[in-house]
Amino acid sequence: MGNKMDRRKLVMLLGGLAGTGAAATLVARADQVAQPAPTSSLQKLPWPYKPIDPDAAAQRAFEGYYKSECMYGAFEAIVGPVAEQLGSPYKDFPFLMFKYGGGGVKGWATLCGALNGAAAAIQLLSPDPDPLVNALFEWYEHEPLPDVHPKGAKFVEIRSVAGSPLCHQSIANWTKVSHKHAYCPERSERCGALTASVARQVVILLNSQSAGKPVAFALPKQTQSCQSCHEKGGAVENIRTKMDCGGCHAPLMGKHPGIS
Amino acid sequence: MGNKMDRRKLVMLLGGLAGTGAAATLVARADQVAQPAPTSSLQKLPWPYKPIDPDAAAQRAFEGYYKSECMYGAFEAIVGPVAEQLGSPYKDFPFLMFKYGGGGVKGWATLCGALNGAAAAIQLLSPDPDPLVNALFEWYEHEPLPDVHPKGAKFVEIRSVAGSPLCHQSIANWTKVSHKHAYCPERSERCGALTASVARQVVILLNSQSAGKPVAFALPKQTQSCQSCHEKGGAVENIRTKMDCGGCHAPLMGKHPGIS
Repeated sequence: MGNKMDRRKLVMLLGGLAGTGAAATLVARADQVAQPAPTSSLQKLPWPYKPIDPDAAAQRAFEGYYKSECMYGAFEAIVGPVAEQLGSPYKDFPFLMFKYGGGGVKGWATLCGALNGAAAAIQLLSPDPDPLVNALFEWYEHEPLPDVHPKGAKFVEIRSVAGSPLCHQSIANWTKVSHKHAYCPERSERCGALTASVARQVVILLNSQSAGKPVAFALPKQTQSCQSCHEKGGAVENIRTKMDCGGCHAPLMGKHPGIS
Repeated sequence: MGNKMDRRKLVMLLGGLAGTGAAATLVARADQVAQPAPTSSLQKLPWPYKPIDPDAAAQRAFEGYYKSECMYGAFEAIVGPVAEQLGSPYKDFPFLMFKYGGGGVKGWATLCGALNGAAAAIQLLSPDPDPLVNALFEWYEHEPLPDVHPKGAKFVEIRSVAGSPLCHQSIANWTKVSHKHAYCPERSERCGALTASVARQVVILLNSQSAGKPVAFALPKQTQSCQSCHEKGGAVENIRTKMDCGGCHAPLMGKHPGIS
């Protein structure tokens, strides 16, 4: 709107100076010159998405992890190629903001940064983000990961099941399986490869949705059983979650009513 | 760089047409007209920050929560006023992307969405984000919250201590203290007011840092004791976290070595 008004003012100004024909030429030039970026397109969600290559995203995520950690690595590997296709203003997005999510947000070990960045990317690129985030988180909880071996990885990857979308459990379970320390280079590389696995899975999900295929998601039976009392409409109704209860409350599972 | 080049071309063009003086006037106008958005400025972190009003941010966060949930509410209440001061391209940031963090990311109850949005905002606006995020998360874990009562809130707020930066514990502890259900309107309003409290606290921290005041942060003694074995350099070194261990592992605390 503002541009239209201003363009008209410029036409009038130039018209007064040098005649309509020359003015029109100049304005056309001025348009090329200025190319006022349609910045409001940034705000319109979802951004236009065309399928990208899952394996390329995985490699880019691994490299991004070493640049600015897990959340940045996952987000940039998914949204970066899309933004490059689309040009400005998309490519000018402040990707480095997502450094904050590294190590479950600044080493707090809350939500896995790869999942945090992935969920942000899905919200930005999907017309129906919820099923994709649900499917991704459930997959992350139960799949032996990392399931890729990026170029440049030095160690044989040791796969573990996180049992939870949280950084804390994901790393603690990996140390159990690997018998390695939480600050060793293998653990760092593992988180880079995990970031690659997550980015790859997100692209597979986005591409499926883009092709009109349904994305499946179901909570584990044990969690459904817990939720029948603790979640919405249950006798207790004291929680709101989709996390696998057994991931943290394993000691409760044997003695809790209704859990075999 | 591109703009400078193009501006010179336009000057030459106009100079050829109508003489240097008139051309200069026109170019000045054209600058106003086109205002080619310095989109790359979006990518340069931190964005320029000038102190904003903490109470106004709190109210804006409460209202934002009802628009697009907790993560959006916190992020937009902090970054929105800054972006409005700065104009384009800042104000064209896709704020609604942060809807994804609602309910600890799409109801998964992982990281509290208000904290997730707050950490993103801090990374975007602070030249030294880590101490602010650390101070914020520790405050959130141990402070009886919400500590504000926004305009438009219908219920008397019931304060509780989350004990954790996670949505799951934060809500579960509130249901314990309030004796109310997790899906009742009071719980929803409580999360809105909590979002307001978090936004207010972030602005206080940003303003302090901006005024050159130091921001304090210390882990609870109990957590330090746990970390002496489990964190970096400890005998076990199987975790990486700053969370209050007692928030989730309370049953361990009595019988664990070194914990009284």
